[in-house]
Amino acid sequence: MYGVERLKDRMYEVNAMGVALALMDWDQQTNMPSGGAEARAEQVGILSTKLHESLVSDQTRAALGQAEAEAESEDDRALARVVRRELDLATKLPSELVGRKALLATQGHELWMKARKANDYAMFRPILGELVEICKEEAGHLGFTDHPYDALTDQYEEGATAAGWQAMFDGIRQPLVELIEETQLASPIEDGFLVGQWPAEKQASFTWAVIQKLGFRGESGRQDAAPHPFCTNFSVNDVRLTNRYNEVVTSSLYSGLHEAGHGLYEQNSPATWDRTPLAGGVSLGIHESQSRTWENIIGRSRAFWQWCYAPLREAFPALPDVGPEAVYKANCTVKPSLIRVEADEVTYNMHIMVRFELECDMVAGKLDVKDLPEAWNEKYRQYLGIVPETDAVGCMQDVHWSSGSIGYFPTYSMGNVLSYQIWACLQRDLGDTDAMLTRGDFAPILAWLVEKVYRHGSKYKPTELIQRVTGKPLGPEDYLAGITSKYRAVYGLA
Amino acid sequence: MYGVERLKDRMYEVNAMGVALALMDWDQQTNMPSGGAEARAEQVGILSTKLHESLVSDQTRAALGQAEAEAESEDDRALARVVRRELDLATKLPSELVGRKALLATQGHELWMKARKANDYAMFRPILGELVEICKEEAGHLGFTDHPYDALTDQYEEGATAAGWQAMFDGIRQPLVELIEETQLASPIEDGFLVGQWPAEKQASFTWAVIQKLGFRGESGRQDAAPHPFCTNFSVNDVRLTNRYNEVVTSSLYSGLHEAGHGLYEQNSPATWDRTPLAGGVSLGIHESQSRTWENIIGRSRAFWQWCYAPLREAFPALPDVGPEAVYKANCTVKPSLIRVEADEVTYNMHIMVRFELECDMVAGKLDVKDLPEAWNEKYRQYLGIVPETDAVGCMQDVHWSSGSIGYFPTYSMGNVLSYQIWACLQRDLGDTDAMLTRGDFAPILAWLVEKVYRHGSKYKPTELIQRVTGKPLGPEDYLAGITSKYRAVYGLA
Repeated sequence: MYGVERLKDRMYEVNAMGVALALMDWDQQTNMPSGGAEARAEQVGILSTKLHESLVSDQTRAALGQAEAEAESEDDRALARVVRRELDLATKLPSELVGRKALLATQGHELWMKARKANDYAMFRPILGELVEICKEEAGHLGFTDHPYDALTDQYEEGATAAGWQAMFDGIRQPLVELIEETQLASPIEDGFLVGQWPAEKQASFTWAVIQKLGFRGESGRQDAAPHPFCTNFSVNDVRLTNRYNEVVTSSLYSGLHEAGHGLYEQNSPATWDRTPLAGGVSLGIHESQSRTWENIIGRSRAFWQWCYAPLREAFPALPDVGPEAVYKANCTVKPSLIRVEADEVTYNMHIMVRFELECDMVAGKLDVKDLPEAWNEKYRQYLGIVPETDAVGCMQDVHWSSGSIGYFPTYSMGNVLSYQIWACLQRDLGDTDAMLTRGDFAPILAWLVEKVYRHGSKYKPTELIQRVTGKPLGPEDYLAGITSKYRAVYGLA
Repeated sequence: MYGVERLKDRMYEVNAMGVALALMDWDQQTNMPSGGAEARAEQVGILSTKLHESLVSDQTRAALGQAEAEAESEDDRALARVVRRELDLATKLPSELVGRKALLATQGHELWMKARKANDYAMFRPILGELVEICKEEAGHLGFTDHPYDALTDQYEEGATAAGWQAMFDGIRQPLVELIEETQLASPIEDGFLVGQWPAEKQASFTWAVIQKLGFRGESGRQDAAPHPFCTNFSVNDVRLTNRYNEVVTSSLYSGLHEAGHGLYEQNSPATWDRTPLAGGVSLGIHESQSRTWENIIGRSRAFWQWCYAPLREAFPALPDVGPEAVYKANCTVKPSLIRVEADEVTYNMHIMVRFELECDMVAGKLDVKDLPEAWNEKYRQYLGIVPETDAVGCMQDVHWSSGSIGYFPTYSMGNVLSYQIWACLQRDLGDTDAMLTRGDFAPILAWLVEKVYRHGSKYKPTELIQRVTGKPLGPEDYLAGITSKYRAVYGLA
């Protein structure tokens, strides 16, 4: 058999087990009765091992070797390259270490939940120290030239390095600090009218209708309630979004737009690549650029609300008739706050910078976990002008470190920055996007993103895709220009 | 490692893949968007193969051999016995035949759907012929002494034979024919008041409340809407029921009671056996006896409605206040009809007899598929006094044959017959069950069933379990006595 076909067969097997695991996870977060947790954890553990065995098996290696030798088309070479990277990442780490980290991550996650609840950093500190140590070990096995962080972050964003992230943050830090200060000195924006008793079913159906209006194919996806919004998929034609419903009328809409951004990227991979590693978004940062595009650039635009105001009022007649401009501005308030996941578009990257700088220092051995709370609080004071009163709303707020995910956070900021960089190109090509948004015509925008980004799935390396789409490497200019002009206008600043 | 422990580890692996497949199936029938079907089918195919490989692997064989040699406790010997049977069933058939049948079953199912829709038996006939032939081949590989049907039906009900089923049906045929005739000559029972516009959510919440009142643990299960009611489970503490909602107010209640009967059996397997083949109901026939107990013996009793009438009226205030006796009788009407899945408790077994006799003759080569419609219609005339006007509502109504499931149908009748045989023992032990049902006190009944049946999971062979619980082999006496006295009373017959 032709090597690429053999390789695809191996990948279909890996995919089947990966989808089983993804479905188990989705089910656990949307449907599973509490009694099911114990057996589910065991079953997930077993299937994860089977998936790993299948990926690193001699058969996969043989098929990959043959495919690398025989691949003739660009797509086939891309497939071989992507599998090689997956296989390398899966085999560079000794399975003893993988098992040890998985155990530590489970324990870490449990202890973190308890410690956060009890606001007791001392309870979490020892295992966090162990997690940092195992990440350093990991970095040693994965290999790096400049900084152990490079090896860690590359797992989440191919080609990323500590220095690269540092440059990204250096480019946006000071302008953001200044923009935040300016907005805080301006008159506050009225947003109290967004709060009310909005039926969850109404929020769900309204958001689902808007999402489909964007171009998300309803027959190839669904939206369910879950404690946290996320997007997962089992094929290009089965993309699941989750959402949660609270007292802010537009909160679930924005969660929905965010997850739909991820979902649109997944749904628009070529169907011929389905169930292979070429299908689906290429990296965390590029994925996040798409969720942010639909959530922030589109959903938090004046033009979007020109269109969406009427459907919103129709869905929620109890909402006072304040007009589209007031709803737009109410959804663009800037306010330094302690919790990352609740942060607005402008302050969000400051939260990430804090985490990036601290985790870099931790894996470099420059910051001891015992000093983390103090360092955390100092950076919040410096970047956001506020200081957490407790570690629960400070350095223990996020799940990531508790399971040893170090190097992940910067991909969120990359998404924010890149979204504007791509959007600037889209605008150059399409012209008056505001006119499109005002009439709720998302088709040309989606078509452009499909053509330039989504249809390429994971074929190109992230850095290569950015270059192809925007003609330059990731840089802060478009982001700063976009966010500064938008929020200065919102706050009526000169 | 001790052989039994090794064997359990192997079975945990098989279980993890089986649960992944069961979850994929549940998801497909409850949630999956239509676009997901194509990839799902491929993923299911791959995981099924992996499960089979894992079951028949050298590792499983070695562990089983060691376990058989070392097992000291009754439970350990039972585990080895059950796995041996599974392994034998999975290996007696050449994989070439298994693959050929799977393909034929898929094609058969598709052709059947088309042919049924078009009411065109000629379209279905050729592939049905092939399916019968492959079942004969299967029987040859599985081995049998008297009748090829024995080998086929044993796959669904361990120890069952054509002669055994024949004896069961011979015991009930004539009395049922007579009971049906008698009821049809009596004054018809009013049941029109059950029909109305009953909100699906209300039906769902009412049924779910009743099911939990029976003792079904809500934290270890759930109920979802699906085109067909079924029960599946992913562990003893995660048992999923499905239901569907129509214009008959008690229809979803009875589907719910039926599936909850299956579910109670699963939930009450010992937790220590979870994820091994010892957990869960032992055979199709014994499983069905439990669904029928809760649906028919309990749910279709006068005493049950003494209790359930008030909750029903509360849930559906638009229902006329006809009183519990009228609701009871309305749910116990007997009427010969063409469609098995809509049949009442008395006529149901006649539908099964028709199928059993025809499938026996087909695999014995006594009945050619070209003569099936005529033979079918003749038996319906003989047993139920009615003749299908089309094959779509005649010999093409069921899914089973279209995927080559021959030998399955009689387990439904076994469930009906056995439910009364077990219930007679329960009544002897517990005394006045009517008083319990009248006050909605299901706990003693469930406790008895757990003690006698459910807690044994799959430890004993079906025939052995029947003997242990009822002190005799399966026989028609209790069933005939129970059903005759009940329906004579309902219809006011002497």
